Amino acid sequence: MSSLSIDPGLGEKFGKHTKRIINQNGSFNVKRNNRRLNPKDIYHFLVNLSWTRFLLVILAGYLLVNLLFGSVYFFIGVENLRNSLNSTPMNNFLSAYFFSIQTFTTVGYGGIVPDGFSANLVASFEALVGLLSFALATGLLYGRFSRPSARILFSRNAVIAPYKDIKALMFRVANLRNNDLIEVEANLLTVFADPVNHNRKYYGMKLERKSVYFFPLSWTIVHPIDEDSPFYNKSAKELKELQTEVLVQFKAFDDTFSQTVHTRFSYIVDEIIWNAKFKPAFEPDEKGEIIFDLDRIHDFELI
Amino acid sequence: MSSLSIDPGLGEKFGKHTKRIINQNGSFNVKRNNRRLNPKDIYHFLVNLSWTRFLLVILAGYLLVNLLFGSVYFFIGVENLRNSLNSTPMNNFLSAYFFSIQTFTTVGYGGIVPDGFSANLVASFEALVGLLSFALATGLLYGRFSRPSARILFSRNAVIAPYKDIKALMFRVANLRNNDLIEVEANLLTVFADPVNHNRKYYGMKLERKSVYFFPLSWTIVHPIDEDSPFYNKSAKELKELQTEVLVQFKAFDDTFSQTVHTRFSYIVDEIIWNAKFKPAFEPDEKGEIIFDLDRIHDFELI
Amino acid sequence: MSSLSIDPGLGEKFGKHTKRIINQNGSFNVKRNNRRLNPKDIYHFLVNLSWTRFLLVILAGYLLVNLLFGSVYFFIGVENLRNSLNSTPMNNFLSAYFFSIQTFTTVGYGGIVPDGFSANLVASFEALVGLLSFALATGLLYGRFSRPSARILFSRNAVIAPYKDIKALMFRVANLRNNDLIEVEANLLTVFADPVNHNRKYYGMKLERKSVYFFPLSWTIVHPIDEDSPFYNKSAKELKELQTEVLVQFKAFDDTFSQTVHTRFSYIVDEIIWNAKFKPAFEPDEKGEIIFDLDRIHDFELI
Amino acid sequence: MSSLSIDPGLGEKFGKHTKRIINQNGSFNVKRNNRRLNPKDIYHFLVNLSWTRFLLVILAGYLLVNLLFGSVYFFIGVENLRNSLNSTPMNNFLSAYFFSIQTFTTVGYGGIVPDGFSANLVASFEALVGLLSFALATGLLYGRFSRPSARILFSRNAVIAPYKDIKALMFRVANLRNNDLIEVEANLLTVFADPVNHNRKYYGMKLERKSVYFFPLSWTIVHPIDEDSPFYNKSAKELKELQTEVLVQFKAFDDTFSQTVHTRFSYIVDEIIWNAKFKPAFEPDEKGEIIFDLDRIHDFELI
Repeated sequence: MSSLSIDPGLGEKFGKHTKRIINQNGSFNVKRNNRRLNPKDIYHFLVNLSWTRFLLVILAGYLLVNLLFGSVYFFIGVENLRNSLNSTPMNNFLSAYFFSIQTFTTVGYGGIVPDGFSANLVASFEALVGLLSFALATGLLYGRFSRPSARILFSRNAVIAPYKDIKALMFRVANLRNNDLIEVEANLLTVFADPVNHNRKYYGMKLERKSVYFFPLSWTIVHPIDEDSPFYNKSAKELKELQTEVLVQFKAFDDTFSQTVHTRFSYIVDEIIWNAKFKPAFEPDEKGEIIFDLDRIHDFELI
Repeated sequence: MSSLSIDPGLGEKFGKHTKRIINQNGSFNVKRNNRRLNPKDIYHFLVNLSWTRFLLVILAGYLLVNLLFGSVYFFIGVENLRNSLNSTPMNNFLSAYFFSIQTFTTVGYGGIVPDGFSANLVASFEALVGLLSFALATGLLYGRFSRPSARILFSRNAVIAPYKDIKALMFRVANLRNNDLIEVEANLLTVFADPVNHNRKYYGMKLERKSVYFFPLSWTIVHPIDEDSPFYNKSAKELKELQTEVLVQFKAFDDTFSQTVHTRFSYIVDEIIWNAKFKPAFEPDEKGEIIFDLDRIHDFELI
Repeated sequence: MSSLSIDPGLGEKFGKHTKRIINQNGSFNVKRNNRRLNPKDIYHFLVNLSWTRFLLVILAGYLLVNLLFGSVYFFIGVENLRNSLNSTPMNNFLSAYFFSIQTFTTVGYGGIVPDGFSANLVASFEALVGLLSFALATGLLYGRFSRPSARILFSRNAVIAPYKDIKALMFRVANLRNNDLIEVEANLLTVFADPVNHNRKYYGMKLERKSVYFFPLSWTIVHPIDEDSPFYNKSAKELKELQTEVLVQFKAFDDTFSQTVHTRFSYIVDEIIWNAKFKPAFEPDEKGEIIFDLDRIHDFELI
Repeated sequence: MSSLSIDPGLGEKFGKHTKRIINQNGSFNVKRNNRRLNPKDIYHFLVNLSWTRFLLVILAGYLLVNLLFGSVYFFIGVENLRNSLNSTPMNNFLSAYFFSIQTFTTVGYGGIVPDGFSANLVASFEALVGLLSFALATGLLYGRFSRPSARILFSRNAVIAPYKDIKALMFRVANLRNNDLIEVEANLLTVFADPVNHNRKYYGMKLERKSVYFFPLSWTIVHPIDEDSPFYNKSAKELKELQTEVLVQFKAFDDTFSQTVHTRFSYIVDEIIWNAKFKPAFEPDEKGEIIFDLDRIHDFELI
């Protein structure tokens, strides 16, 4: 094999058992201890949560904060909340709770009004907390929406198909979202494991075409298995023994948000199909428009 | 023709009828099925809506949400809204509706006040929904304003004009907006269709000048038709038969928003005028200032 | 002169009188007619306003909108605003005006409360307008603060000073603000006017050093006047006749806001001092700290 | 020494005493006088404050502004605040203060309501100030969270370790935060001081590997001390006399925020350990996952 091993920053050692290096969601199988957490990481966590969970967190936070402030008003005594009848403890607590909500949200109907120093002081503080919380929510919502995120669909399998008079490793990618991606680039690495020395080696892989300018359709990434390829003269069995993994780096410019987006993916040896080729995923219709079915990006046929 | 066909990621097959590849607004004639929609696409949709439609959507949403919450208060019964007279159903509904609005907007005059658990609970939830809605609106408004968007004016036609001792394809571009664009670049591709094999081929086109640094005036993009050009030795009739389309990629750095902006355009064969040249679009006045009339960018004269 | 004329996108023709091409504030002497204005230009205008003017615009808008809505309530009749005494027209108008403010800001004390359909309807609409206005203000304030803007100080004059055994054109730049600028680059062009043909020509200018990595101090930009220079063998008188102008493009990466910033400047012939050199603008103090006085960046001495 | 001195924009002169050029937090030992401060610098200051201090500033501002407006209402006279009993001056002041808070936060319970022109006018203005303040807070909170900031951990010491058959200067870096950094680059400069001429000189340093693509683990930056190195044939004593400092520029693309981030660091001669090597900071566990302990990045052993 003529290509030289390179170091992509992923470490070379591995233990008795190995895991794939890059998971299907683009994360690494690395556990980092003694990281320093700071508020930005909480923000980051909330920005990356699914929408359902995010709204549940907001709702739970809303109920909890008001439970807290409601309890404070309750312990101060509802006689400090004008217009609220002093009745059963339950009703008193509800008065305190709903007064808290009216303060936190700055609705302030005035149906219940703080009386005296202590209730007014707590209410003053709660209104500030409320406004800052909604300032935070505004930022979080905007952050969630404006966060750059390519949603790239990779074909479930890579195939090894005939290509000119040699073979080539191929897989397909498409843009799952509506935003315009341009200046799309891919970069591939092969990882071979040496089970004796517990060492991994990384090899660059040449592509027929490293980038395309437009990306409205699917793009088939083609690595010709010539003498420079780490796959050259290797049988399926050999690749299996080497615990082969193909790492994919994918980069594009998101024209909609004016941001560069990156994504990662990998194919382990069991996800590489020998002697198969992809079926076309898009076709022109009678009107001349090209119909592209994103679900067909995975379809291949054995040959 | 000496230049090699290249693949810009747009597919080569086409059907019985063809459409232009890039529409005048920069979109592609591709229909994508089975895309995955997520909330970010709704955001993206709202950010790209015209201002009139955007404000109508906001207004409609406002009326609808309050209709919903108003109905809930109405069905709970207006006797749970203190100070609202229990009169005709219509008046009761209006009381409920306006109470809903006072809660949603957090105005909370207190003219009407929730009484009892159920009304208070709904109002608590509505105030939260209201605040989150306006947090969303804040993000949407900011998103609309800060979204990078070059508004580039392309001349309606490209012309084929004399250039040195050969001919050249020329068209003009200008910045429709006030923001400063710099480091302006253009890239051109010719598309020829082969009606027999239903195949399209793409060819790069050399430019006299690929980029200019400043862009306060119009810029004439010039493709000399020399032996490297896909247009070389082709008559107007031949270009028509090849269903010629010139794809334009345009890129600039928006100094005002510190963002790179891209735009696309295309000239189909019927939009290319032979033996014509552009009239000047800007001229110095007596004070030494250069007067540039954006509407004159389209003007050409036959020669 | 060996260097070739280039086209930076600024036009070559000029009239009887000429103005400098780039003004001291970086704008061009170009008047653009038939631009299309859209709301984004208003946003852009408000983001670029000085702080005093911006706050005056906000205040004026606040008074005006409430004057408008106040008048509507007044014409509907203050009998529709509960708790407001129907007294003199002036007092009635003030009641209507302050009720409008309480609605627009969503304070909603409830001292005055809308009664009846029409007042409630207008108030509903006003509360929406109010919330959207403050959503807009939020975006504008954030936009003003986060807008990338290098504030680069250029020395008032360029000097022509001895440099090795030839001469060189030199000027100095410094960062007026506290943010970290790195990867700082400069690019220079000379413009010569031909008063007979009313034509301008642009020439590139080589720099001793095109960029520096760090920028905590001042940077002296040096163009050696060798045989490649457009200034080569030209006397001060000749440069004056050619209406010489040196255009400066300046580019840096703002590490604080993670944005690339550009700025422009120019020196006309009268701002170029022959046989002068700059005085040092920074010096180490006894503690080893380097003291840099930004005001001394302009200081030169004749030689 | 074969490598040529270069100018990174940091000045060459120094005084009797010297300080390190780049401090551990990445700042320079430069004092800049006559900078122009503008509101953007205040924003920048607030965005960079620690969270505790930031919240204290917000709280202090909140109390102060309301103290101010509360005093105005108090001096106007609480008889202009309906429903507030005119009692002791202390109670009157508290009424005025809490009314101010209810106006500033737009809670507006209506327990106290402005009466008459002057109180209404001040309240109108305060509500505007309140809304703008919270608009500002929204922007500041979002600005704090979305600000690009790599938190890069540099090993406390650099070591001079055997490398192939020569020696090399090495140090380690890791990403302290959870965001994905990719396309990580380092650039090194050596600074030698000439105590006779009070002059500093800067020399580039070649790296074994200038960049890595992925950065989930630590990265060891290796400068081989070959004949091109400024360290070549220099003893520890000589380096000490030259007041050697190694400046590190570090650059990465933050995939989470789609922003390029830069950071700086330096090792002065006393922080460079001769004849030492780093201990491994990460190891595979039995499950095949790689465990990386960020605190072990500093660990080295003498050899």
